[in-house]
Amino acid sequence: MKHIAILGSTGSIGKNTLQVVRNLKDKFRVTGLSTHSQWEFLAEQVEEFNPSHVALSNPQLAEKLKHRLSYNQTEIICGNNCLKDIVLKSKADIVVSAVVGAIGLSAAIETVQAGKILALANKEALVMAGNIVMPLAKKNQILPVDSEHSAIFQALQSGKQNEIKRIIITASGGPFYDFPADTLAGVTPAQALKHPTWRMGQKITIDSATLMNKALEIIEAKWLFNLEAEQIDVVIHPQSIIHSMVEFCDGSVIAQMGMPDMKVPIQYALTYPEREGLNVEPFDLPRIESLTFKKPDLEKFPALKLGYLAAREGGTIGATLNAANEIAVQAFLEKKIRFTEISFFVEKVINNHRFIKDPCLEEILEADAWARQEIKKCLT
Amino acid sequence: MKHIAILGSTGSIGKNTLQVVRNLKDKFRVTGLSTHSQWEFLAEQVEEFNPSHVALSNPQLAEKLKHRLSYNQTEIICGNNCLKDIVLKSKADIVVSAVVGAIGLSAAIETVQAGKILALANKEALVMAGNIVMPLAKKNQILPVDSEHSAIFQALQSGKQNEIKRIIITASGGPFYDFPADTLAGVTPAQALKHPTWRMGQKITIDSATLMNKALEIIEAKWLFNLEAEQIDVVIHPQSIIHSMVEFCDGSVIAQMGMPDMKVPIQYALTYPEREGLNVEPFDLPRIESLTFKKPDLEKFPALKLGYLAAREGGTIGATLNAANEIAVQAFLEKKIRFTEISFFVEKVINNHRFIKDPCLEEILEADAWARQEIKKCLT
Repeated sequence: MKHIAILGSTGSIGKNTLQVVRNLKDKFRVTGLSTHSQWEFLAEQVEEFNPSHVALSNPQLAEKLKHRLSYNQTEIICGNNCLKDIVLKSKADIVVSAVVGAIGLSAAIETVQAGKILALANKEALVMAGNIVMPLAKKNQILPVDSEHSAIFQALQSGKQNEIKRIIITASGGPFYDFPADTLAGVTPAQALKHPTWRMGQKITIDSATLMNKALEIIEAKWLFNLEAEQIDVVIHPQSIIHSMVEFCDGSVIAQMGMPDMKVPIQYALTYPEREGLNVEPFDLPRIESLTFKKPDLEKFPALKLGYLAAREGGTIGATLNAANEIAVQAFLEKKIRFTEISFFVEKVINNHRFIKDPCLEEILEADAWARQEIKKCLT
Repeated sequence: MKHIAILGSTGSIGKNTLQVVRNLKDKFRVTGLSTHSQWEFLAEQVEEFNPSHVALSNPQLAEKLKHRLSYNQTEIICGNNCLKDIVLKSKADIVVSAVVGAIGLSAAIETVQAGKILALANKEALVMAGNIVMPLAKKNQILPVDSEHSAIFQALQSGKQNEIKRIIITASGGPFYDFPADTLAGVTPAQALKHPTWRMGQKITIDSATLMNKALEIIEAKWLFNLEAEQIDVVIHPQSIIHSMVEFCDGSVIAQMGMPDMKVPIQYALTYPEREGLNVEPFDLPRIESLTFKKPDLEKFPALKLGYLAAREGGTIGATLNAANEIAVQAFLEKKIRFTEISFFVEKVINNHRFIKDPCLEEILEADAWARQEIKKCLT
């Protein structure tokens, strides 16, 4: 029986993780849950899974939760360090980090330092601080939850790290891939929130539309699999059936495929190195008929270029890119900036930032904070 | 330095194997070679690779070879048991069995019993006598060379045997897949010998056109991977880029892909569990554009049904199917029977044969000999 803590249990990955746990009740017990603000939903999860600890950053909402759960033994943690606290107090063997954004970094470091398995959906931890997080982790201590990185991790079972020629990350291309370049400035948040193949949270759906999500994945892959930027290719694959590939030195390409369903990579991270049964939509290639592939258009989607820049140069670029993008996406959702201005302003902030080649954690957090302030200047 | 014997070194697989050895001179040394009749070509291979032993079944041709190689230390073996002899005398660590047809069976058994690695391209050994050969072999002692089975073997590195839901063997469909059913009776050997994606020997190219090759692969896969017939699916994939797939119990599908090049699966069998560098045609999915998939048409290509029958019922059906097909293909190449009569007559022979559920080797060889006689009745 493995004990699991889920950071961000009320989001899309969190809910899917709990569905996996529901299906494998005899393998897993939930000992920790957290949410940013959805306290009522968290209360329902507590009632079903009965964890020893839950976390809520907001003290007022924590009070409401306490009141609702007054008859329950679950300890409620709140405050700024609540994610770190839940990693340690919940006695989890595996921490699923499914929070969105930079706030996942300290919890990731805490998890790895405590010797626990980190099932990582919060790619920002590596985008910002791969140079800090990866050296702390033992081999296979960080297991990817992202479908692309899980695909690469699964494909890598068929070869060794030094046998990798390159990886090929697939991208659906998002809803606007075939739009003429000059129409992109006019797309609305409502249009951008309609992802063609995956149902996900708002932030990642917008990132998928700008291809900034793919940029973050390039940076994550560089750290997770210890690759050079030149070993990372992106190919547009609108059907999202091939989740990513590894090309080995002998010309063999190993791909992980399947109908889009986040439960597959989540469960693999939880059960690795075993696989357990999971009911998914049947995989029927003749019904799918055709898998198509296109080169990514780096001019139309400049976010990808920024991803390669960050993967190549490292340093503080990942943290700067990520922080600026978080603010820019929020501004786009609030209709304060245009769709195309997301990447444009992020690039501007990167170009203006003070580059540090091998930053310590403090310098990374400073770059993050600086970028958030800097991009706000563009929004007014 | 591993020592390698190649049975059938002058055929397509044999030549590709020697190319792999040429590229990895510091890893492999060729100690045995054999050919059926191409003695002059064999002499050239001897001059280049200087094996300790070579085999030629025909004594007259062996004499010619002896004369040509008079200055050479290589020992020349001839006669009916020459394949078995070369397995033992050449002191090989790995025996690549690349002969065509039933004659590979005894060499396969000899190789496995001698504790050597069997790199198996001669699928007939398992089609005929999987029930005999597999129990003799240790785990991973038989390594597949067929591109499809190599793909499955590589994909299986990402999971365990008991986690397999099914395998999906891809088939190019051959040159006639889209021909109207009523035109198939009229196709000529010259048409059938034009395979759309792979350059191979005559026998396997005709088998690819009738889909009998896929039938043989179904039977081989059943034995090699210890599967039920119901766990083996075939999907038509005209581009031959995905070489085959494994669907695991958790819904993950692992595929091995690449440009069609037999050196890839051959080298993998030789270097397993390592991978070594190999120059192959670049893998460029955007240039390929599209991978397509269709259900196999079992009415138009009844050979597939026979493959499933043999995989389901086992016993002497595999040996009977294989022997009858060898004769029928030869008769088609000699324009004695029509293309569609290959499968038709093979089915007739299977239906007439005396089924033995768990045959010993002698009974398998009897079924083989009987089927060869029986189908000849159909040809006159």
